[in-house]
Amino acid sequence: MPTAEILNIGTELVLGETVNTNATFLARHLSRAGFQVRRITVVGDIPQEIQAAAREALARSQVLVVTGGLGPTVDDPTRAALAQAVGRPLEFRDDAWEEIVARVRARGREPTENARRMAYLPRGAQALPNSVGVAPGFVVETEDRRVLVALPGVPGEMEAMFLGHGLPYLRRRFGLQTETLRTRVLVVEGVPEAWIDEKLGDLEKRENPFLGLSCSPGRVHLRLRARGQTPQEAETLLDQLEAEIRQRLPWPVRREDETEKV
Amino acid sequence: MPTAEILNIGTELVLGETVNTNATFLARHLSRAGFQVRRITVVGDIPQEIQAAAREALARSQVLVVTGGLGPTVDDPTRAALAQAVGRPLEFRDDAWEEIVARVRARGREPTENARRMAYLPRGAQALPNSVGVAPGFVVETEDRRVLVALPGVPGEMEAMFLGHGLPYLRRRFGLQTETLRTRVLVVEGVPEAWIDEKLGDLEKRENPFLGLSCSPGRVHLRLRARGQTPQEAETLLDQLEAEIRQRLPWPVRREDETEKV
Repeated sequence: MPTAEILNIGTELVLGETVNTNATFLARHLSRAGFQVRRITVVGDIPQEIQAAAREALARSQVLVVTGGLGPTVDDPTRAALAQAVGRPLEFRDDAWEEIVARVRARGREPTENARRMAYLPRGAQALPNSVGVAPGFVVETEDRRVLVALPGVPGEMEAMFLGHGLPYLRRRFGLQTETLRTRVLVVEGVPEAWIDEKLGDLEKRENPFLGLSCSPGRVHLRLRARGQTPQEAETLLDQLEAEIRQRLPWPVRREDETEKV
Repeated sequence: MPTAEILNIGTELVLGETVNTNATFLARHLSRAGFQVRRITVVGDIPQEIQAAAREALARSQVLVVTGGLGPTVDDPTRAALAQAVGRPLEFRDDAWEEIVARVRARGREPTENARRMAYLPRGAQALPNSVGVAPGFVVETEDRRVLVALPGVPGEMEAMFLGHGLPYLRRRFGLQTETLRTRVLVVEGVPEAWIDEKLGDLEKRENPFLGLSCSPGRVHLRLRARGQTPQEAETLLDQLEAEIRQRLPWPVRREDETEKV
């Protein structure tokens, strides 16, 4: 399974002012597409921190998806730090600039001088169009074929760009059209996690289907996950695991979506 | 300004099944207390990944606060990985075990065999009591005086342990202005959480005093927390909040310690 990491850049994140829903969104879509997300990293808008975190991630994993800091303001140093992390100079790109001008004019304005900053991309990068905002993202590959995908930090822009351009690029690049991840959550009420663990410990060591326990007050969640070449194959694995669990546990077990999602 | 990092451990996080609100909570409180949060890292329940991420963070920053993986189940490998990261063996601790047994018995149960896992702490660690759940946390310092604080992953347990024990430890250790936290738990029996939430929703949005709801079968716990420059100031805030709650709720409200601790 190809390995991937996520790097979210934003001082508001390390100050705890904003919940990092971008990480959750990307982790979910990368996992479902068949990537193993090894690590998620968050740093502030500090060039040295961004560059170090990006270098480390690209040394560990095949894919790095970055969010944040692609806008035109001076506190957005991501573009230069990422270019340094992949060892490429920034270059002014006419294609990116034309796209920026078109997006700004579509809003009835003229681009300001600092908007030109957004048209600088690492040499060899492919620009990713921003269908919601203005700043383009990009994909660039390193000498040793690691893939860096840079996305805006605004969730609506990030999500549209990742699902519309970033993820399709990654799927093609790693030949991942087929494998599917399916998940299911079972709930047991009023029984301590340790009692359930005693009955299911060996199932928690399997890779596929995978079982993990987590708890919230008064209930234990059994998180089932399975991968298959088809959704049907993954669902069958989940069905088998669920049957095994129900057979072993002497307490009522229900699927989470029977009530929580109504 | 002393530097700090956060490491959140959980496969549900790297799969994007859960939003990492623990990181936001810790980042906010560490920042407010005077720490510079340099980085937040998330890894799955994989011993090598946990160990590597903890080592790297402790090499970069003075404080590392870890959440997750302290429970008794086999998919909770955090304890051993952190002990390795700080270069200390795990030791069975009688004081931690007594606390665990007391917490389990207070719920009218007997500890299972695998609960003993939770009483193993790195040599030299100070156990942090868990006032909400069962698994203790701990603080341990490395040879070069870096501080590791390990907390449970369940948000209610993590928050109470961090505000009640972890943060006061860090403030003392780094000579940051001391502030007192006081907590109080009120219990309402036989009323759905949603009804209570409807009456108290606006109080739950306040920062200080803070009100959080949690539930166990048949009862709702109202967890009150207040900070002040003195214990008296914090107690006064709690008294005011409790009076407000009693005025709004048409059901009997009692303090948890009136019965539970007798």
